[in-house]
Amino acid sequence: MRIDILTVFPDMLEGFFNCSMMARAQKAGLAEIHLHDIREYTTDKHHKTDDYPFGGCAGLVMKIEPIDRLITDLKSQRDYDEVIYTSPDGEQFNQKTANSLSLLDNVIILCGHYKGIDYRIREHLITREISIGDYVLTGGELAAAVMTDSIVRLIPGVLSDEQSALSDCFQDNLLAPPVYTRPAEYKGWRVPDVLLSGNQALIDDWEFQQSMERTKRLRPDLLE
Amino acid sequence: MRIDILTVFPDMLEGFFNCSMMARAQKAGLAEIHLHDIREYTTDKHHKTDDYPFGGCAGLVMKIEPIDRLITDLKSQRDYDEVIYTSPDGEQFNQKTANSLSLLDNVIILCGHYKGIDYRIREHLITREISIGDYVLTGGELAAAVMTDSIVRLIPGVLSDEQSALSDCFQDNLLAPPVYTRPAEYKGWRVPDVLLSGNQALIDDWEFQQSMERTKRLRPDLLE
Repeated sequence: MRIDILTVFPDMLEGFFNCSMMARAQKAGLAEIHLHDIREYTTDKHHKTDDYPFGGCAGLVMKIEPIDRLITDLKSQRDYDEVIYTSPDGEQFNQKTANSLSLLDNVIILCGHYKGIDYRIREHLITREISIGDYVLTGGELAAAVMTDSIVRLIPGVLSDEQSALSDCFQDNLLAPPVYTRPAEYKGWRVPDVLLSGNQALIDDWEFQQSMERTKRLRPDLLE
Repeated sequence: MRIDILTVFPDMLEGFFNCSMMARAQKAGLAEIHLHDIREYTTDKHHKTDDYPFGGCAGLVMKIEPIDRLITDLKSQRDYDEVIYTSPDGEQFNQKTANSLSLLDNVIILCGHYKGIDYRIREHLITREISIGDYVLTGGELAAAVMTDSIVRLIPGVLSDEQSALSDCFQDNLLAPPVYTRPAEYKGWRVPDVLLSGNQALIDDWEFQQSMERTKRLRPDLLE
């Protein structure tokens, strides 16, 4: 899978995509993440990517031309399944969205910044608007990173068996049970006896009960 | 406001906090963001921060000791209002949470990784568990960055008047109206005439109608 991220702040994301799971997925050839600097597609001498909005309201709006040029350039090289814009008023991103996007081949994610992008880009160039939650960020860069992370880890082979995504929260609409590691006692805080019992049937039962209890208490909506 | 972020991958976030609004907020002395490497608080020669879980399930669990030492060290230096753990089963983060957290003085955010942290940390050291959305990430690092970004931009003085947060989505429970910038026409795609009219009363009215229409269509739940 290939993900092209379009931003005016590529430096913001570079460290992130060179670390941990993201670096491994790219080295293994399972995911290609490309950061594109929108500024490189400006043609004026000041490399302006934003301008004042029509109508006199506060803020700066990202201009059409460099974004249109960049998207056109990418589309001339391959077919894209989706051109996504990260926006707080888009459809809510969740684990189901991550699962379905992880099956695509080529995806563009456009990161807005300032007061957002010229609305004509959303009308004519974007195929899907996605929000990672009901809060406002300085820009879409973190939203693009969040989506990319949750999508890429679902690509078969990216996580080792040990890190298997199958026991994650949400994959079966249940919250995960509590986990514990050594030492069995620390400052008087003890691991539940059942986990030290060696009786796998009892342990599995306890874990399922804990998952159910936590889901009912914390997220009853997941069971509806 | 001071935010201490505890992670086993500080490199993942460094670029992000040195860019854009985050860099400005810190230079202006309005926010202090400190990244702490949990590994520096290990005492064994392999600097182990994780271990196999009790009960035989897959994955690795972050150990209590280095995290307890790091939190104890920080608490000995100042009082913390909250010790937050980022977890998909925590309370949902939204703009109201961001507003209230932006009023605090000192906050710790602990980033989980792998299968999560030893549950005893959550029971004894964490004061609040927060989720940024119903999806699973490789680690809590991006969740910590998302929370920090949305909180810090609300601190008075961080955004200039031009970027004012007051006209953001969610601040008044309405989605923002469409925005446009020059050119007024591009490839036959035109800016709505009213925005070029110069009649501010008409423009304000149009923007409010657009906000209402978009909210009713895309997020009727915000109006309930």
